[in-house]
Amino acid sequence: MKIALAQLNYHIGNFELNTQKNISYLQQAKAEGADLVVFSELSICGYSPQDLLDYSSFMEACEHALSTIAEHCDSIACIIGMPIKNEVLDGKDFYNVAHFIENKKIKATVKKALLPTYDVFDEYRYFEPGETFKCIEFKGKKIALTICEDLWNINDNPMYVSCPMDTLIKESPDLMINIAASPFSYCHDEERKSILSDNCKKYNLPLFYVNAVGAQTEIVFDGGSLVFNNDGAIMAEMPYFKEALGVFDVEELEISATFPPQIIAESDISQIHKALIVGIQDYFSKSGFKKAVLGLSGGIDSAIVCALAAEALGPEHVHAILMPSKYSSDHSIKDAIDLVQNLGCLHQIIPIEKASEAFEISLADSFRGLAPNLTEENIQARCRGIILMALSNKFGYILLNTSNKSEVSVGYGTLYGDMCGAMGVIGDVYKTQVFELAKYINRDREIIPINTIVKPPSAELRPDQKDSDSLPEYDLLDKLLMAHIEHKKDRKQLIEMGFDKDLVARILKLVNIAEFKRFQAPPILRVSPKAYGMGRRVPIVSKYI
Amino acid sequence: MKIALAQLNYHIGNFELNTQKNISYLQQAKAEGADLVVFSELSICGYSPQDLLDYSSFMEACEHALSTIAEHCDSIACIIGMPIKNEVLDGKDFYNVAHFIENKKIKATVKKALLPTYDVFDEYRYFEPGETFKCIEFKGKKIALTICEDLWNINDNPMYVSCPMDTLIKESPDLMINIAASPFSYCHDEERKSILSDNCKKYNLPLFYVNAVGAQTEIVFDGGSLVFNNDGAIMAEMPYFKEALGVFDVEELEISATFPPQIIAESDISQIHKALIVGIQDYFSKSGFKKAVLGLSGGIDSAIVCALAAEALGPEHVHAILMPSKYSSDHSIKDAIDLVQNLGCLHQIIPIEKASEAFEISLADSFRGLAPNLTEENIQARCRGIILMALSNKFGYILLNTSNKSEVSVGYGTLYGDMCGAMGVIGDVYKTQVFELAKYINRDREIIPINTIVKPPSAELRPDQKDSDSLPEYDLLDKLLMAHIEHKKDRKQLIEMGFDKDLVARILKLVNIAEFKRFQAPPILRVSPKAYGMGRRVPIVSKYI
Repeated sequence: MKIALAQLNYHIGNFELNTQKNISYLQQAKAEGADLVVFSELSICGYSPQDLLDYSSFMEACEHALSTIAEHCDSIACIIGMPIKNEVLDGKDFYNVAHFIENKKIKATVKKALLPTYDVFDEYRYFEPGETFKCIEFKGKKIALTICEDLWNINDNPMYVSCPMDTLIKESPDLMINIAASPFSYCHDEERKSILSDNCKKYNLPLFYVNAVGAQTEIVFDGGSLVFNNDGAIMAEMPYFKEALGVFDVEELEISATFPPQIIAESDISQIHKALIVGIQDYFSKSGFKKAVLGLSGGIDSAIVCALAAEALGPEHVHAILMPSKYSSDHSIKDAIDLVQNLGCLHQIIPIEKASEAFEISLADSFRGLAPNLTEENIQARCRGIILMALSNKFGYILLNTSNKSEVSVGYGTLYGDMCGAMGVIGDVYKTQVFELAKYINRDREIIPINTIVKPPSAELRPDQKDSDSLPEYDLLDKLLMAHIEHKKDRKQLIEMGFDKDLVARILKLVNIAEFKRFQAPPILRVSPKAYGMGRRVPIVSKYI
Repeated sequence: MKIALAQLNYHIGNFELNTQKNISYLQQAKAEGADLVVFSELSICGYSPQDLLDYSSFMEACEHALSTIAEHCDSIACIIGMPIKNEVLDGKDFYNVAHFIENKKIKATVKKALLPTYDVFDEYRYFEPGETFKCIEFKGKKIALTICEDLWNINDNPMYVSCPMDTLIKESPDLMINIAASPFSYCHDEERKSILSDNCKKYNLPLFYVNAVGAQTEIVFDGGSLVFNNDGAIMAEMPYFKEALGVFDVEELEISATFPPQIIAESDISQIHKALIVGIQDYFSKSGFKKAVLGLSGGIDSAIVCALAAEALGPEHVHAILMPSKYSSDHSIKDAIDLVQNLGCLHQIIPIEKASEAFEISLADSFRGLAPNLTEENIQARCRGIILMALSNKFGYILLNTSNKSEVSVGYGTLYGDMCGAMGVIGDVYKTQVFELAKYINRDREIIPINTIVKPPSAELRPDQKDSDSLPEYDLLDKLLMAHIEHKKDRKQLIEMGFDKDLVARILKLVNIAEFKRFQAPPILRVSPKAYGMGRRVPIVSKYI
């Protein structure tokens, strides 16, 4: 028996596109002699439709797409994911299912049992968990079919009390198939392989695992579908961050030569780089835009975002705007121009001095006798925001936000100023990782100007300002933030880890206060296991730090 | 036996304040001769702590507060809500529980079984559902104790397959107690009474129901704790939107004279009015601010927000800023000044013309040959945003956002312009409801100037602009929006309801496109059953309309 795994990039709610794509890959699988083609979780509508499920016609469109696809399942069977209505009165209104289609008919429907409701996931908001499990018989083989999280209850801290495979194994299946929509975060591929491999070992079964690919606003699915033998060894690893079809012969599973060679493990930083590129590309293509605009300060954050955008969209589609003020250093302009020349993207210089002066004059009466402070710095940042948004509005550019995760964490940014943008490209990338990204982007030649990398970070909103005037050095800050955000260490634990008591108090207070700013931040491309936005939900008006 | 219900306003994570408050009401209940005092759901830490639960010291602070309170439970028993750790490896890490404390010891712990995970609720993100149910014995009575949603599985479309009371009733309890954190939305009090009453009838038991009160950022708890007899008749109804203690004699439940008289049913609009006042007050007091700033256009939206803020904070704490442009009509200034004089709050006039001209000059090269359009309108709105934020930054004012739900729905507002603000006061109130609110505010005397109410709504961003140039009349628009947002009617259903096909297509497209704007909107005080923000989660980059 030959199984085809189709890892595709869906557009949520774009039934025409998704259906066309599913049918095209189904035909290709047929052409390559596959008996069964397997698509990823919720592949009819895209993952995750969230509250769109509430609309009847969304569900009808799912049903219609399913029928259309089923018509093509003549000489090939198909496993495909979608939401269905729960016809029983009690419980949630929907199930997240995998249909098994053979001879154009639905022969079996598997309901997802373990519903991730943590981090960026909200599945129990919509779905009732499946409670009965039965293997599927196909061409003399018994298939234990599960959906994503259903195989994930195997680690040290199981999140669920039930385990679907423990029931399915009693039927002595011949193989496992798992359809997933498992998003990227650095290190996650290793964890995923380890969990899936543990399943193979525990049940002594081979596994065919298909993952979605492509970005849905903040979330990037990384593909990398996998085939394991019953020892839990990886027999095939499909490409990451791109669409692919792999056809595998179940009987030849032990002869690894027939499978594509394993992909060489990538560094975290090259994975993050790819994820951000796909994140930008898909945001633009799925929302029907081509051109980006961003403010280029000469600093490293905007330089990185500019380089990523140029790679993702083509340099001819990236408009870099230099907006010097009286506090901008000469090297800032030079560094920014060096960058756009290295990249070949467009640039324009629009000074903000006149605009910020106009506000100072308008506010002179109100501010009389008061010394300049953060307020005036924020006015400058907001003048830049207005200029960028005006260009965005006039020319249909999408404004890219350039805040990094260190800044977003401590609120070192101006709401409605440098926090403007339709998407936060590096808002989940700490400053120290931004430097690593710069090195990675420069791996073959100097794209990010060296001076941009080596000069001390500064917002240049007052004379001789440096980030380190108000923040600790980023090496230290990022370690502390990562311990607090990603590893959930509280004040006491951070001090036990050796961080200075006063520093901990100061930074945690900043993180807490910045909650109201983050609430209004753009969607941020998620690359870490604990990203701001959907991934971390904290009440704004709370006391705890 | 005398039971005291304490409906209190907690501050999430402010353990000192919450503990002090709980103890003070416990002492008062003792003084009034109560045998048992009952606090609301998660009353140790406030509802809902969300991801703060992830921090060990948060959980330790809960435990510490519990011990402190238990020390006072000598001559009085107590029921109090908090999160506890799930000591079993499998399942979620926490339970949402009610502790029963007698003689300073925890005698029983009830775990919440039905975990709301829909609308603004995320409980399954954190909590494992309780699965065993046992009555509590106290002073010769058997108490069936449950937590909020545990009693809500009784309506037409039950969301859960289990029902804790069906188990508890087998022990033949004498009464039910339910501790809740049930947020306000208009009509919700009626639904709540009906559900609770149905429980009394179904199980033939009296019910003591205590609800939280006060606002937690977007969510407003309305109190209104209730006592029912075993026929499901309301024997006592505690005040709405304020803290209160009620002491009730279980034995005298049939003699309604011993209970406080029932509160007269309020109109939706007066309830919304109260909810918004509490929402403003608590946002300010819980985040440590006193003074508000807002832009006053002469239109009805900002007038209403100004009046609400003046009532909530005192007029001396409200700074209304008039920011005329060349497109502002004379009556706008007059209407705005009439309002601030009626209210007695402060005002200042800061024209935006110079600032917006500065941007037009800065952008002249880029925009050469292009006709003015929305871009220039947005620049004006953003200049106002900068001025308001500058005042907010300089003087520590909180900027109140004045967008209404009709605008927020169709994206009729400028991101980083009139969409600025720390909180959206009327973002969940449709324009037609805004007019009702104006009438309500003017019930005793003219506060909102009549001219503000009767003149055609206009953004005044270009000559002779009216909202109705780009939008249908609000009567029609709001009906359509309410059907689509609150009642989840899709395109087909809306057309079946009689709405014009092209209008439906146009408005639904606007609602869909505006998703990216709403993502960056301030937190909006929730007063409807389907509020933007936590209450409605839709992918930004999706195709479906």
